Amino acid sequence: MMKEIYKGDPVHLFIEEVTLPNGKTIPLEIVRHPGASAVVPLLGDGRVVLIHQFRHAAGGYIYEIPAGKLSKGEAPEACAIREVEEEVGYHVGHLEKLTAIFTVPGFCDEVIHLYLGTDLSPCPQNLDEDEIIEIVTLPFEEVMDKITDQTIRDAKSIVGLQLAYAEAKKAGII
Amino acid sequence: MMKEIYKGDPVHLFIEEVTLPNGKTIPLEIVRHPGASAVVPLLGDGRVVLIHQFRHAAGGYIYEIPAGKLSKGEAPEACAIREVEEEVGYHVGHLEKLTAIFTVPGFCDEVIHLYLGTDLSPCPQNLDEDEIIEIVTLPFEEVMDKITDQTIRDAKSIVGLQLAYAEAKKAGII
Repeated sequence: MMKEIYKGDPVHLFIEEVTLPNGKTIPLEIVRHPGASAVVPLLGDGRVVLIHQFRHAAGGYIYEIPAGKLSKGEAPEACAIREVEEEVGYHVGHLEKLTAIFTVPGFCDEVIHLYLGTDLSPCPQNLDEDEIIEIVTLPFEEVMDKITDQTIRDAKSIVGLQLAYAEAKKAGII
Repeated sequence: MMKEIYKGDPVHLFIEEVTLPNGKTIPLEIVRHPGASAVVPLLGDGRVVLIHQFRHAAGGYIYEIPAGKLSKGEAPEACAIREVEEEVGYHVGHLEKLTAIFTVPGFCDEVIHLYLGTDLSPCPQNLDEDEIIEIVTLPFEEVMDKITDQTIRDAKSIVGLQLAYAEAKKAGII
């Protein structure tokens, strides 16, 4: 049994009757989400392209990697490339999958597909009118310091940056 | 202006009129959350205590670090210690703050306070009846491999484990 509570954008809320592995059946609130992609865009000189974005839920501007929801029927890779173009104005020539994370498995089924994006070439930026974004381009080491000193606090961004850093080191890019 | 759409547990959903830095006012959906704490419990022999938890929203069992919501008026540190006791049956003697993350800044104000927990001593586990949890204790290196090979996919757990690993290395614990 599944009851729709609210249908908005991005929040689509249900109460679902769930039978647990212990045999007990309980109602659970769940926000159904289309999924998303996020990319660590890495320039040839070893700098990372971050965004500094206004987020009401976070109480102001926070640092993030470019990311966005999957459009209907869109593949995660296509979404990843589209979001980097729209949000920071780079076309990604090479995309490498890092992982796919659950952001809030307690009440939402969102999965974010994370990528390292390299072979970047400039293209026009194309923001939605409600996206308030500044582009911040920094050396990778400096970005990693901003995780440790708690300047970067967005979960998907930290996971993506940590994995991309290890990958880029291994590949000799940085 | 703020309109309550649904008040449940854990989901408390509002539509709020928000004035953006560009002067435009728009309605935004926001799930208001009390915040949470999560801990990487590290044994003296270098093994990490993980949980393998049934999560309906993730479609089955996933690996996580012990975590839970702040009770009303509860400090993040007290919540961290309580959750490790309840979920994995260890008292944490020493708690070290790693960071505090935004899990889904697009539509929810949840902040998870992340800690490294050391100086562990066994105590009774005390699960809620709807928590389906198996305890999995593994060497830290093996846990880190499970991030890279995409077995561990929970965002807060990956962030906590990555930061705790670096911290434990630095402190000579592992």
